[in-house]
Amino acid sequence: MKEIVLLRHGESVWNRENRFTGWTDVGLSEWGAREAEQAGELLREEGFVFGQAYVSCLKRAVETLDRVLRVLDQQWIPVEKSWRLNEKHYGALQGLNKAETAAKFGEAQVHAWRRAYDAAPEPLSEDDPRNPRFDLRYRGVPDAELPRTESLRDTVERTLPYWKCTVFPALVRCDRVLVVAHGNSLRGIVKYLKDISDEAIAGLNLPTGVPWVFSFDERLRPAGDRLLGDAEQIRLRAEEVAAQGTVRG
Amino acid sequence: MKEIVLLRHGESVWNRENRFTGWTDVGLSEWGAREAEQAGELLREEGFVFGQAYVSCLKRAVETLDRVLRVLDQQWIPVEKSWRLNEKHYGALQGLNKAETAAKFGEAQVHAWRRAYDAAPEPLSEDDPRNPRFDLRYRGVPDAELPRTESLRDTVERTLPYWKCTVFPALVRCDRVLVVAHGNSLRGIVKYLKDISDEAIAGLNLPTGVPWVFSFDERLRPAGDRLLGDAEQIRLRAEEVAAQGTVRG
Repeated sequence: MKEIVLLRHGESVWNRENRFTGWTDVGLSEWGAREAEQAGELLREEGFVFGQAYVSCLKRAVETLDRVLRVLDQQWIPVEKSWRLNEKHYGALQGLNKAETAAKFGEAQVHAWRRAYDAAPEPLSEDDPRNPRFDLRYRGVPDAELPRTESLRDTVERTLPYWKCTVFPALVRCDRVLVVAHGNSLRGIVKYLKDISDEAIAGLNLPTGVPWVFSFDERLRPAGDRLLGDAEQIRLRAEEVAAQGTVRG
Repeated sequence: MKEIVLLRHGESVWNRENRFTGWTDVGLSEWGAREAEQAGELLREEGFVFGQAYVSCLKRAVETLDRVLRVLDQQWIPVEKSWRLNEKHYGALQGLNKAETAAKFGEAQVHAWRRAYDAAPEPLSEDDPRNPRFDLRYRGVPDAELPRTESLRDTVERTLPYWKCTVFPALVRCDRVLVVAHGNSLRGIVKYLKDISDEAIAGLNLPTGVPWVFSFDERLRPAGDRLLGDAEQIRLRAEEVAAQGTVRG
């Protein structure tokens, strides 16, 4: 049996402030660092040894991975970073408070921007300093590939090629592969792996810090999936994520 | 001008205990973690932005790199890990206290094992649990390449191919490259870059936590080198390293 583990980064300082983050590069909160270590402990208890890890270009994911590997005592594992695993780009909403945005545009609109499969917030203007074309880390990426905003469909369309060409084929040479990324980039992968409809994906909330293990048989056909850790805690964490973006959130 | 920065990891818990470490995978001491951050601060003050980083498979180097990238706020930089940047393999001495070893075998013999270009300590036996062939992290390396002990010449001979094939060519696509490794793997690289003789290399002591910047012109010809930081502090740190392995050391 071969396995790919998906892990959403721990709480960032902007999750805590309830702001739209997207591609903004903010670090883990103290609680988020602790969540990362707990995820590492869950993986260690089950004896996971990884052959390869993949992570986005955003520090909340990189810091989560660093902590997981430290807890596992597997800091020697090869790591590849890719912008294709980045969070959904939230366009001009990036930096705004979710509750304030809900008060201004209405909860329904904010929920659509966050969850409707084809809804994308207003794009960043070409000269906005937040535009990814000004960010050195993306200088190797063709400009036409770099988003100014994204719907979840857009996120899925730039994440899946990386899954198909890089992450999944790594199972040929590795028994265990780790992917540390974000709520929406991972939702796109889960949507594909579990064949979830465009409508139903809105209802899927990935808890932070909970490893999601996807198994594959010796011919690399899907063979089930499971969340690691205490079921009740997982449910509570998923509800917390769903509650963000309400006026009170 | 293009630049490659060589950085020796900060103090490990075994440096502190004055034990032969080699390929033993021990973490940074608290002071070593602080040294790593100071190196990051020196690089930040000079505005370094790296396009690629290389590091050994040993956690004292990986943790040093993690901390440097965090201080630089450049956690998105691609990192490649290679056993070819590992410390010199100290064979059967690995784990022994340097002062005790000096008392037993004499300071001259210990100095030879540490510094004579062709002296290698007793090799590990094939069934020694410390033998790298049992370590999962090296399962992708042909067994005939994995050392059971090394002289500095052996270390240079497995490090330089990586320098020539991977690290140096990265300058074609990157302006700044960072290499975080070990006292002896870096001495091999410096020996090559500065054309130091087999005899004279014994006298070269790399201070920990001090970035050593090698510059290259637009045709990638060597164009000088410099150490970052306070000259007096650099001298003191290099002397500390040289004093290890004496009976009092």
